[in-house]
Amino acid sequence: MTTSMIQRLFTQGTKIVCVGRNYAAHAKELGNAVPKEPVIFLKPTSSYLENGGTIEIPHPLESLHHEVELAVVMGEKARDVPESTAMDYIGGYAVALDMTARELQASAKASGLPWTLAKGQDTFTPISSVLPKAMVHDPDNLELWLKVDGETRQKGLTKDMIFKVPYLISYISSIMTLYEGDVILTGTPEGVGPVKIGQKITAGITGLSEVQFDVDRRVKPLS
Amino acid sequence: MTTSMIQRLFTQGTKIVCVGRNYAAHAKELGNAVPKEPVIFLKPTSSYLENGGTIEIPHPLESLHHEVELAVVMGEKARDVPESTAMDYIGGYAVALDMTARELQASAKASGLPWTLAKGQDTFTPISSVLPKAMVHDPDNLELWLKVDGETRQKGLTKDMIFKVPYLISYISSIMTLYEGDVILTGTPEGVGPVKIGQKITAGITGLSEVQFDVDRRVKPLS
Ligand SMILES: [Mg+2]
Ligand SMILES: [Mg+2]
Ligand SMILES: [Mg+2]
Repeated sequence: MTTSMIQRLFTQGTKIVCVGRNYAAHAKELGNAVPKEPVIFLKPTSSYLENGGTIEIPHPLESLHHEVELAVVMGEKARDVPESTAMDYIGGYAVALDMTARELQASAKASGLPWTLAKGQDTFTPISSVLPKAMVHDPDNLELWLKVDGETRQKGLTKDMIFKVPYLISYISSIMTLYEGDVILTGTPEGVGPVKIGQKITAGITGLSEVQFDVDRRVKPLS
Repeated sequence: MTTSMIQRLFTQGTKIVCVGRNYAAHAKELGNAVPKEPVIFLKPTSSYLENGGTIEIPHPLESLHHEVELAVVMGEKARDVPESTAMDYIGGYAVALDMTARELQASAKASGLPWTLAKGQDTFTPISSVLPKAMVHDPDNLELWLKVDGETRQKGLTKDMIFKVPYLISYISSIMTLYEGDVILTGTPEGVGPVKIGQKITAGITGLSEVQFDVDRRVKPLS
């Protein structure tokens, strides 16, 4: 895969498949059980935000929660892929934030409703450019970090994932076909918490990628 | 929009935004309250199935529920669109089935988990070709129907939608940007129920479109 192909993946992609509760310490901090199978949900590609952009908090929310995650970018179509060959289907990696309106998610969970409103709004998936697969020797041995206004909030190791990358690709591809440019967000380590209007988020994969985002109020046009 | 553009919409589209509980009689038959705002969730475009295809029931499920719905296909990018101009953004219409693994949905609802497994698997969104907008004079005055093995199961009128098409476009576009080829599934009238392996579904919009699908067991490759 050429560099220009890799950078085009986000515009080619048709879905973001997210994994919830994939680090035991994070499941615990939200009071959730550690799952027996991956918890998966979708975010729309319209929620992507490029490095340097502004995360928008919709009225009347006062904050969103940050969740720093390793993003796996698919390099080719994958359906019913066994774990043993799953890594062959990867095109690259990125660092992403699964921004979450936690109050909306909590009320959706209490009512048995979908998480789309809490997870799927525009700018709710800030993401870095794609790191070609060759730059990431071991996705199971990366350090993810996130700071708010320079203060460390999350620091975690991908080796603490409950379900590792090859298992996730195998599992998700048994539910739905993954296409080139589709992205898997692999879950967040502990330390999630609120960010508010006027704050700045920096995040990264240690030694490989760093991104920054502003946080502001979403302004709707007058109608 | 030309005919070839219209038929390309599905391959261009990046999301399917579904509306739950949009007909009062259907909300009631599943024991749900009539919502104050639309209940929205996502299906991936990988779940599309063309007319004549086979709906696949994954092991160990014995049936899926059929939900016949009016699909609205977006003709251009829409963000924060007011109701008054919402219809201008439509490219066409289709008849679609929001196939649902009802047991998986029920257990997800009981656990506060996402509906993705219940709604998002391959072949879970059978859909007709796109009817150009000019062929549908009044989307608020259509009859949707669905038969299993020739026996009528669902027959409903789009005028019974709680949230009408312009409201849905306005509401959804205030949450997330809709792009050309994105599809809104507008909810199902009453009469949902199981279909099993070996049965045939026919469905349509009276006078405008008719589709048919077989139902079979999903076969996974040996690994
Ligand atoms: Mg997350
Ligand atoms: Mg696309
Ligand atoms: Mg439905």
